[in-house]
Amino acid sequence: MEVLHLYGSEEQKKQWLEPLLQGNITSCFCMTEPDVASSDATNIECSIQRDEDSYVINGKKWWSSGAGNPKCKIAIVLGRTQNTSLSRHKQHSMILVPMNTPGVKIIRPLSVFGYTDNFHGGHFEIHFNQVRVPATNLILGEGRGFEISQGRLGPGRIHHCMRTVGLAERALQIMCERATQRIAFKKKLYAHEVVAHWIAESRIAIEKIRLLTLKAAHSMDTLGSAGAKKEIAMIKVAAPRAVSKIVDWAIQVCGGAGVSQDYPLANMYAITRVLRLADGPDEVHLSAIATMELRDQAKRLTAKI
Amino acid sequence: MEVLHLYGSEEQKKQWLEPLLQGNITSCFCMTEPDVASSDATNIECSIQRDEDSYVINGKKWWSSGAGNPKCKIAIVLGRTQNTSLSRHKQHSMILVPMNTPGVKIIRPLSVFGYTDNFHGGHFEIHFNQVRVPATNLILGEGRGFEISQGRLGPGRIHHCMRTVGLAERALQIMCERATQRIAFKKKLYAHEVVAHWIAESRIAIEKIRLLTLKAAHSMDTLGSAGAKKEIAMIKVAAPRAVSKIVDWAIQVCGGAGVSQDYPLANMYAITRVLRLADGPDEVHLSAIATMELRDQAKRLTAKI
Amino acid sequence: MEVLHLYGSEEQKKQWLEPLLQGNITSCFCMTEPDVASSDATNIECSIQRDEDSYVINGKKWWSSGAGNPKCKIAIVLGRTQNTSLSRHKQHSMILVPMNTPGVKIIRPLSVFGYTDNFHGGHFEIHFNQVRVPATNLILGEGRGFEISQGRLGPGRIHHCMRTVGLAERALQIMCERATQRIAFKKKLYAHEVVAHWIAESRIAIEKIRLLTLKAAHSMDTLGSAGAKKEIAMIKVAAPRAVSKIVDWAIQVCGGAGVSQDYPLANMYAITRVLRLADGPDEVHLSAIATMELRDQAKRLTAKI
Amino acid sequence: MEVLHLYGSEEQKKQWLEPLLQGNITSCFCMTEPDVASSDATNIECSIQRDEDSYVINGKKWWSSGAGNPKCKIAIVLGRTQNTSLSRHKQHSMILVPMNTPGVKIIRPLSVFGYTDNFHGGHFEIHFNQVRVPATNLILGEGRGFEISQGRLGPGRIHHCMRTVGLAERALQIMCERATQRIAFKKKLYAHEVVAHWIAESRIAIEKIRLLTLKAAHSMDTLGSAGAKKEIAMIKVAAPRAVSKIVDWAIQVCGGAGVSQDYPLANMYAITRVLRLADGPDEVHLSAIATMELRDQAKRLTAKI
Repeated sequence: MEVLHLYGSEEQKKQWLEPLLQGNITSCFCMTEPDVASSDATNIECSIQRDEDSYVINGKKWWSSGAGNPKCKIAIVLGRTQNTSLSRHKQHSMILVPMNTPGVKIIRPLSVFGYTDNFHGGHFEIHFNQVRVPATNLILGEGRGFEISQGRLGPGRIHHCMRTVGLAERALQIMCERATQRIAFKKKLYAHEVVAHWIAESRIAIEKIRLLTLKAAHSMDTLGSAGAKKEIAMIKVAAPRAVSKIVDWAIQVCGGAGVSQDYPLANMYAITRVLRLADGPDEVHLSAIATMELRDQAKRLTAKI
Repeated sequence: MEVLHLYGSEEQKKQWLEPLLQGNITSCFCMTEPDVASSDATNIECSIQRDEDSYVINGKKWWSSGAGNPKCKIAIVLGRTQNTSLSRHKQHSMILVPMNTPGVKIIRPLSVFGYTDNFHGGHFEIHFNQVRVPATNLILGEGRGFEISQGRLGPGRIHHCMRTVGLAERALQIMCERATQRIAFKKKLYAHEVVAHWIAESRIAIEKIRLLTLKAAHSMDTLGSAGAKKEIAMIKVAAPRAVSKIVDWAIQVCGGAGVSQDYPLANMYAITRVLRLADGPDEVHLSAIATMELRDQAKRLTAKI
Repeated sequence: MEVLHLYGSEEQKKQWLEPLLQGNITSCFCMTEPDVASSDATNIECSIQRDEDSYVINGKKWWSSGAGNPKCKIAIVLGRTQNTSLSRHKQHSMILVPMNTPGVKIIRPLSVFGYTDNFHGGHFEIHFNQVRVPATNLILGEGRGFEISQGRLGPGRIHHCMRTVGLAERALQIMCERATQRIAFKKKLYAHEVVAHWIAESRIAIEKIRLLTLKAAHSMDTLGSAGAKKEIAMIKVAAPRAVSKIVDWAIQVCGGAGVSQDYPLANMYAITRVLRLADGPDEVHLSAIATMELRDQAKRLTAKI
Repeated sequence: MEVLHLYGSEEQKKQWLEPLLQGNITSCFCMTEPDVASSDATNIECSIQRDEDSYVINGKKWWSSGAGNPKCKIAIVLGRTQNTSLSRHKQHSMILVPMNTPGVKIIRPLSVFGYTDNFHGGHFEIHFNQVRVPATNLILGEGRGFEISQGRLGPGRIHHCMRTVGLAERALQIMCERATQRIAFKKKLYAHEVVAHWIAESRIAIEKIRLLTLKAAHSMDTLGSAGAKKEIAMIKVAAPRAVSKIVDWAIQVCGGAGVSQDYPLANMYAITRVLRLADGPDEVHLSAIATMELRDQAKRLTAKI
């Protein structure tokens, strides 16, 4: 939705954004590919080739969330439009592909740990085989795929982080409830110092990521996606990692029940763990933050002189 | 099998151990209970009441591994024989309960991070409702349940640790293979220093737990379960924790594929994570190690004088 | 100064606060004792005994910062006024002791790692042997020592945290400068991914503790010391720990120079490490945070009903 | 001594090794330089230039341990013999330099976390200005400096690790003693679960590094320095890091006393922390281990085929 809202043509908005907003249909986003390290988006290989008034799409995508929803009618696909004379970051484009176009095939659901349904109806692998769509389905223009990605990923990442903050609060609640109910070695679990410290560490960690998320959101509101780039990357790394740890403590407090279906914790762990990979693994963001920090430090040195 | 081998009567061995060894039947072990913190085994509430020539069993058990196997014909159940005049560690007993005894009911499989089948056919919740078995089914004698537990848990724990060492080797292989195949940002993944260091850290961690496991096994062989108690506790804590970390790095190297069904890693994580709870959570073992260490230090001080 | 400002009598302010504010004299604070675990302040043993119009002080104190300064003319001493009929938290008082009173003896400077001068002229051990001062030197009243402590420690702790944030910024600057200057294995140090990630992690950590400190300071301004108690405890734990890690990375980037007198880093480490002990070790604060969190969670549950 | 023993000529041994073994003199080793990242030994810049029957040495060295000892009569200096036609690893040589040779100047002691004397009489910066020694002082031959380094560093590193194991045992003893003496919040410190777990974790960590050290020593005895290269690197990383953590816990248990001169702990920390840098920082060893592991994994794959 954000992509169409921000970058779609009037015609594209009319045809797809309106029913999306009305809730009549849903969409999916096809970016990551099974055969290349998609953490480096320039690796993307799916091809989008111009053929007179059409584009023809060929490639394999996966982790397309929500593709299994029967209401999912439209996919946005990132692929290579192959103008190799352009710079590495100008060779990719985004295009609208109706799910019922011949050649679009949903191959299989992907499991996350043992769960197949833990996010908007699951993640899927989808193949595109000689899929032909009108040239007007291209969004914004050839070679502008990464530009759109950047615009979309910022808010998406903060959104993920916000949800993990809420998820962490729920995990801490569960931890506290269990710790006040169970008795081991003649003491309530919370009276075991180690458990008490997990509770304290969880609260500290939640407050840290909540504040960092709020700061990133504020920067995005006031400076835009580009201005908030460093802060978005920071929270994207910090939040899922911290919340994984909190959920892990909560599991330990709940014992066997914690990993089972009796508590939502193992599923929370799976969801949170995936966020350390989705939209770029932590390591890519850390490298980006370092580059920005070194640049900021260099600026300060110059400013002093 | 170990329990019957070590503590069973001749009659018990003949009836159950022989078909077990022949592979005609399998067994399950019913210790942990959903309603109490079983990390403190004195909390166990399942009752085993004498009634003339029988014992009558009532209680709820879970994490009974392998109970769902159609060949599972016999359960060993830990419960309270209720002689409250005895010390806290003499109130429990173990008893043989054929799975087809009236009142034995398999309630449901338990999932582990979404997986329901990742260990000998899965873990189950089983209820015992007025289950009557002959008094001769009692193993070793009333009030000797913990004695049997201790004898059984030592080898069981080392066995778990040995398997995690193998599992870690497999995870490291996967990590190395993936790191030599994939390219991101113009370099093989292993040429990214952070990935290289995960590989190195994994190798260091594996060597450490392998040596600690071998030492514990050697102590058990030469000093027996009791003499090796501290070392068994140490490796029980150290191995699952270290291997969880290695598997987590392997997942990160494999990206989205790492958490999906395309790699065994997420399942490995689930198996390993559970071992930080099974047979007592890490925290219980750490407290036990500390007690033994303080006693050893006190002995040394005395010896010096 | 804060103590006199907040709790001193008019006479006390006139005699001591004024020259302190004018910078003519300095003061020191005598709370911690060598012979008891002062993390639990009720352990404090120094005695302050009423004897007609005087109080007589006997005891040993250490970590009295600034006592070696020749301008240090006045000590505030916490001790037991011994009314054992009162509750455990009402048995201590604070009293003003001029440094030149007979019986006050500066025993020795205390080193912090190998440094003896890293905080306002160093930390000292001071003994009080039959030290007699006028009864009017008592601050606020008998048994009100902890009340004064609480009022003083809140702002003091935040102040420490603020300084560590600045210290961390300086350490990160040093890390970045060194990483852009040195070459190892044909690359600038910052081009080594591991170093880059330390830079990124440092920035993330600094932002987290900066925001948490600002939040605690805001709570203290708006809710007072008591209302901000949980947040002050949180930042007291979080900041020194995070900054220790940052300084440690900076040392690693600077190599041997990092631990030597050529860089301020080793001294920064010493200062920061001490803050994990000063004003209560981390563990005491974590336990306090856990208690407050459990109470807050219980309130929420009640509120829901 | 090892260098002369292994690589010295008969004449060199007679002149220097014998008095060293008799304890009449001591030596120092001059490798690290202040102006380059010596973690990459090919950066070493000190020049050793042939001039007829002499070599002339010019350069700055530091972290030369023991140079301040009045009995220190001889230095072994690593420098560049400048035959740039040779490979990067064949351009350095080692040479014997009597400390009283004109042009040798001890500049200053280097502090380690404020300590200046914590290792064989301290570490020093030494400058060599047109220092001329007979050509026969060269050890083994031109361009063989790294070969000697490798032969020397293996045993040296294991030796360091062995000492850290002993140091860790001492730190754990101190931790246990203090924990059984002090009372806080109405319980002995060891009865605080967090402290108990530190004790347990310390014992686990010590056992792990002790076994890993023994294994590396065994490999060195049976396979030689080259064959034990991976294991030496592993323990070089693992031991100082683990021991730093143990010492840090011991400090926390001892409170303010732990960082002061009343306990050896802060000094132990300084010594141990330096070992994460000395003889190459952890990161260099981790990268080397990864390279060896990837090669070993590749061999196994080939062996399978």
